[in-house]
Amino acid sequence: MSSRLLSFVGRTGRRRLMSTAIKLTTVEVNDKTGIATLTMCRPPVNGQNLELLLDIKSSINEIKNNNSRGLIITSASPKVFSAGLDILEMYKPDQQRLRAVWTELQNVWCDLYGISVPTAAAINGHAPAGGCLLATACEYRVMVPNCIIGLNETQLGIIAPKWLVSGYLNILPKRVAERALTQGRLFTTDEALQEGLIDEIANSKEEAVDKCVAFIGTFAKVNPVARALTKQQFRADNLRQFHKEREQDVDDFLSLVNRPEVQKGIGIYLEGLKKKANKQ
Amino acid sequence: MSSRLLSFVGRTGRRRLMSTAIKLTTVEVNDKTGIATLTMCRPPVNGQNLELLLDIKSSINEIKNNNSRGLIITSASPKVFSAGLDILEMYKPDQQRLRAVWTELQNVWCDLYGISVPTAAAINGHAPAGGCLLATACEYRVMVPNCIIGLNETQLGIIAPKWLVSGYLNILPKRVAERALTQGRLFTTDEALQEGLIDEIANSKEEAVDKCVAFIGTFAKVNPVARALTKQQFRADNLRQFHKEREQDVDDFLSLVNRPEVQKGIGIYLEGLKKKANKQ
Amino acid sequence: MSSRLLSFVGRTGRRRLMSTAIKLTTVEVNDKTGIATLTMCRPPVNGQNLELLLDIKSSINEIKNNNSRGLIITSASPKVFSAGLDILEMYKPDQQRLRAVWTELQNVWCDLYGISVPTAAAINGHAPAGGCLLATACEYRVMVPNCIIGLNETQLGIIAPKWLVSGYLNILPKRVAERALTQGRLFTTDEALQEGLIDEIANSKEEAVDKCVAFIGTFAKVNPVARALTKQQFRADNLRQFHKEREQDVDDFLSLVNRPEVQKGIGIYLEGLKKKANKQ
Repeated sequence: MSSRLLSFVGRTGRRRLMSTAIKLTTVEVNDKTGIATLTMCRPPVNGQNLELLLDIKSSINEIKNNNSRGLIITSASPKVFSAGLDILEMYKPDQQRLRAVWTELQNVWCDLYGISVPTAAAINGHAPAGGCLLATACEYRVMVPNCIIGLNETQLGIIAPKWLVSGYLNILPKRVAERALTQGRLFTTDEALQEGLIDEIANSKEEAVDKCVAFIGTFAKVNPVARALTKQQFRADNLRQFHKEREQDVDDFLSLVNRPEVQKGIGIYLEGLKKKANKQ
Repeated sequence: MSSRLLSFVGRTGRRRLMSTAIKLTTVEVNDKTGIATLTMCRPPVNGQNLELLLDIKSSINEIKNNNSRGLIITSASPKVFSAGLDILEMYKPDQQRLRAVWTELQNVWCDLYGISVPTAAAINGHAPAGGCLLATACEYRVMVPNCIIGLNETQLGIIAPKWLVSGYLNILPKRVAERALTQGRLFTTDEALQEGLIDEIANSKEEAVDKCVAFIGTFAKVNPVARALTKQQFRADNLRQFHKEREQDVDDFLSLVNRPEVQKGIGIYLEGLKKKANKQ
Repeated sequence: MSSRLLSFVGRTGRRRLMSTAIKLTTVEVNDKTGIATLTMCRPPVNGQNLELLLDIKSSINEIKNNNSRGLIITSASPKVFSAGLDILEMYKPDQQRLRAVWTELQNVWCDLYGISVPTAAAINGHAPAGGCLLATACEYRVMVPNCIIGLNETQLGIIAPKWLVSGYLNILPKRVAERALTQGRLFTTDEALQEGLIDEIANSKEEAVDKCVAFIGTFAKVNPVARALTKQQFRADNLRQFHKEREQDVDDFLSLVNRPEVQKGIGIYLEGLKKKANKQ
């Protein structure tokens, strides 16, 4: 499979926000198919800190502008697609940075949700919370066996924002979605297939990517302008609602995270992680 | 199973509307699980007259305020969960009382639909119309075999109000819901399970309650505040719409019930019931 | 089966728009059942030109006013229910006529979608695009084997308007609908049954009509006024949205069709048809 690397383009405007100049995503465009693959590369679990979110956003926009015929999102980690928001961003946070983190999570969602080309997620590992966000913003989902996916925010003491739920409801029946959201349910690969949260199971990352390529191939004979307008019309209401509420949503998120009991909960959680690490 | 009775609390404000001081509902909170069971006790069929509706409302609010971890609604009647609105309330009605009846039906729905704790219906008998209203306002439904459930308003010459339909649509696919609503379809227990209108079948009331307890138990490790906010966010649009339209909805209901042809229909129906009773 | 013809009523107001006085639809009301059958008769494929659309609209309104107990729509062609908008209406169009075509397509949809009596489509052949529009505006769909149905607009370089999509979403789950709309997917009869896009399969047109009659018969014991109010309440939001956007939608359609690349595409398509015809 011949391909060319299109990453490492100039991104001057955001440098001052980054602690490192190493890009945390790559974009590869396949010469034959014209399909771009966006790979997240922040070991070990693609925790979504500010830098990773900025790089995902930048890669989505790169794909928007390079005439790709489709977008596949996947992970360089062997067992995790993305573990979601980096919890360190939420602990004793610098308020301005925390605001930027949530704003960029919003940007990543609305850019991926609204992009006109066909999108598919090759979910080659676990995809809780923010991992599920990326997968459900796409039009198609292929997942490897024995992993979990879902919006488990209530298990962490926070809530999935309304815009994210609106995307969940594009995929799951309402009664399944409400129960899963209140329970913070993580679906196994098999359960996700049964409920329609994913579309296919693949035995490896390579096979998952191939199935995503095949899905994007179903649009080969479709007029791309008509396709884009149809997708955008379908998703317009959710996006309009999102833009109306996005500022309030940032304020709500900050106010929730800054609650003493939430901070305490995160502290205990991180302490637990440290102890685990020391034992090994 | 140890439990304590919490009913018979003071309800001064509504006494003047009641024809009797005997409470038509009971609330029991299980000491171990912290789950409250609300039982309707208006023999023979829990016909929803003004007094029963006021007592259901009062019991829901009691549970809201007594730190219960969940709410289970069920019936003291052996074969009927609730037969819905008491038809006598609609025949040659006192206008002010009829207005109060519909207003309290609205209150019962929005209080039960919007309560933050997990809710489940142990449907131990038939649940047409207003019985189905109570069940579908909950988050989970367990039903005994060989009973019927559904919004059969059109069979009675009236219509299910929009707010009630909005709750139906949280559960049923649109095409199933529209057909069922226009037909006034009553689902058997088996049909209800197949379409998703109920979640489980239980062989007895006791087993139904146990399954409701198990459902509420799935939230044991979930942060209750995050759970409550998630549920409320999910149901907010329907509740907002309801509050906007509730006054108009009362007027519409009164105007429909007062139509001569509807009054005539109810009269014929009641005459039929009387003849049946005399034959026995 | 006794029946009386009710067509050929006066339609003075629209004569000036018609190129022919021969009516392209018939309406038959069955004396026993009181059900009206609207048959499209524009050989070979019921291509929806201005005249056919005006006649469908006129027939729907005739049925609205003749006290029929239900409406069944079907086709006189042996293999095609309706092939959708007549492509000749879109090629090098007279702007005023093109505006009238799209306006009448809107009228046909909203009149059929909003009519108070029960409606069913006996889909006795292929039903792409505008054919699917007619079928999905009804409450019930019965289809013969080995045909196709769906909104394949993106395959033709145009897009299904929002009001049409709103009706599609009354029937299909969102994730199925979005994919089908972007792909311009045509479902086979079997696929349509599996996804819920149709309700039953029939082996012949006669059997399809019989099944539609049986569906309408399920309302025999339902109060027709309550049924009508329930249907209208269910469909009111979509119709309200439609009326808000219908003028803009005409402008959008004209602007799309008049694009040079769309005109070129239609020209190539028509050239292909001509060559095919010459070869035979």
